[in-house]
Amino acid sequence: MSWWQQAVRPLDGAVRERALARQRQLTKPAGALGQLERVAVELAAMQGRERPQVERLWIAVFAGDHGVVEEGVSAYPQAVTGQMLRNFVGGGAAISVLARRLGATLEVIDLGSADPGLALPGVRHLRLGAGTANFAREPALSAAQLQAALAAGRASVSRACEAGAELFIGGEMGIGNTSAASALACALLNCPARALVGPGTGLDAAGVQHKAAVIERALALHAEQLGDPLATLRCLGGFEIAALAGAYLACAQQGVLALVDGFICTVAALCAVRLNPACRAWLLFAHRGAEPGHRLLLTALEAEPLLELGLRLGEGSGAALAVPLLQLACSLHNEMATFAEAAVADRGQ
Amino acid sequence: MSWWQQAVRPLDGAVRERALARQRQLTKPAGALGQLERVAVELAAMQGRERPQVERLWIAVFAGDHGVVEEGVSAYPQAVTGQMLRNFVGGGAAISVLARRLGATLEVIDLGSADPGLALPGVRHLRLGAGTANFAREPALSAAQLQAALAAGRASVSRACEAGAELFIGGEMGIGNTSAASALACALLNCPARALVGPGTGLDAAGVQHKAAVIERALALHAEQLGDPLATLRCLGGFEIAALAGAYLACAQQGVLALVDGFICTVAALCAVRLNPACRAWLLFAHRGAEPGHRLLLTALEAEPLLELGLRLGEGSGAALAVPLLQLACSLHNEMATFAEAAVADRGQ
Repeated sequence: MSWWQQAVRPLDGAVRERALARQRQLTKPAGALGQLERVAVELAAMQGRERPQVERLWIAVFAGDHGVVEEGVSAYPQAVTGQMLRNFVGGGAAISVLARRLGATLEVIDLGSADPGLALPGVRHLRLGAGTANFAREPALSAAQLQAALAAGRASVSRACEAGAELFIGGEMGIGNTSAASALACALLNCPARALVGPGTGLDAAGVQHKAAVIERALALHAEQLGDPLATLRCLGGFEIAALAGAYLACAQQGVLALVDGFICTVAALCAVRLNPACRAWLLFAHRGAEPGHRLLLTALEAEPLLELGLRLGEGSGAALAVPLLQLACSLHNEMATFAEAAVADRGQ
Repeated sequence: MSWWQQAVRPLDGAVRERALARQRQLTKPAGALGQLERVAVELAAMQGRERPQVERLWIAVFAGDHGVVEEGVSAYPQAVTGQMLRNFVGGGAAISVLARRLGATLEVIDLGSADPGLALPGVRHLRLGAGTANFAREPALSAAQLQAALAAGRASVSRACEAGAELFIGGEMGIGNTSAASALACALLNCPARALVGPGTGLDAAGVQHKAAVIERALALHAEQLGDPLATLRCLGGFEIAALAGAYLACAQQGVLALVDGFICTVAALCAVRLNPACRAWLLFAHRGAEPGHRLLLTALEAEPLLELGLRLGEGSGAALAVPLLQLACSLHNEMATFAEAAVADRGQ
């Protein structure tokens, strides 16, 4: 049995009931805070306390390069992956700004960028390879690379838990990774590329068509492997996507809420759920992004995301943007007066 | 010319252009932050500075009672209005919790609750009447009450601006006020009650039907007045709805962004826009709530709300929940590195 197949931590059903009972007593019509009530109750069940909180935040950005860029599937040059790694630790990227404003710990992990000599202070360079192989020609990852990437995700979650994190956000960066994520989504959802592939960071219509054709070719090439989620991840995935899947699985096992970002992270979450379905209970989905395939994935995961702002950035930025909603949901749940405390008449007179 | 017909403050088009140019240089694909980019740019144009901020927050909750409750249109007893006023200043209501967490100033204004002797420390009691008249039988407000309510909204905005507020949130409380708001919406949108009326704080299907019938009767009774927005507001509105409309108009004149809450606030915003269309530029819509008529109103106002969480509470709570998104939009706009600063390749190689 692999580590990710081992049991996840169970949620506390008794605490959930107490949290639900508390919600019904707060001075507002029952259900008036909509999704935020459900979030607070689930957080209580996860944390095993009637009054949950989400103050200590851990954000891990996983980066990796993709061999498939040689097929011309991205609007940006591959050098941008390394340049953005520098920007993450330099404080100028979107996720850097958000982490600072939220008071979150930001960890940046380079699993394998195209420049194997890259050595940036503040970045964990794991050097699994100089990018993945081109999945339109061969499996993207070797078996050993896949194991190492999954373990890298788990190791980040372990560091988060040691630091007392109450929330784990995984982010990603990698030129070409919407192609890998789209190929994975097509395989896992059994959906033709034409129905799912989108512009990523900014392809035009011809670019999208070409990307879909490359993915169709890859799906045919690896067809025999695509019945098994682990083999699918190895053939079509990326270092950072596998690390995210490993992180989500570890979050469920170690008992910390994972707030899932956009399209690519949601693909990683679907991989995690296929590898161990019980991990689903520890995942919360932050937003529905602009990439058209995101909606299909969220539906397959029965996810009800908190935000829909037309985001298509990645880095974990959409998840970071949803953090204040979780914090405010907790404050409302924890601090509002009950009908009895405030001497307010409930409707059930 | 009434005060609300006077000119609103113009937005700064040159600053908007500079803010747009800055957005295009930030280290992300153009448009990747979706709605948040547009919000930051509009805020820059409002505040006349390329790097806007929304840190000083003013929340004013306007309360009033409604004569129409004698028709049996609410799930809650009318005493709840006064009880909730106590809860607002006591710190136990949802908006109290949110204001505390956001560091916002919270002002509570009782325009006229059913108990005219109510005297709560921390509440501004304006005593325009012991609730409005029953609009199913007569005009809800007198002409003098309407003037006083509009002016009360403006006075709150003046206090906010004197305190240096960068954002004004109006909230409302008043048992029966979804009935008044629905009647106004039907009149202003020329829409039958059946197509717009919803459960408010929690009516069942029979209750909704009855509420729609009461509103249809009122629309017929006041038909001759409903061509004019001011007369419509007087016949069908409420003290707190008129105060909100006055506040939104004053925000536009005094140059402070108004973040509009849910269904009732959006009706007030529509009244304001009908009274002085130019005020629309100073309104931002926080969320699409659960009340079914809200969608129709937002469409009529060409509004693109930030959140959709199934909220149906009022008090300004949905607007307060959207504040962190505005703050993070500003941080991203102000603090992200440009492609040149971070030495990251843009797609236009």
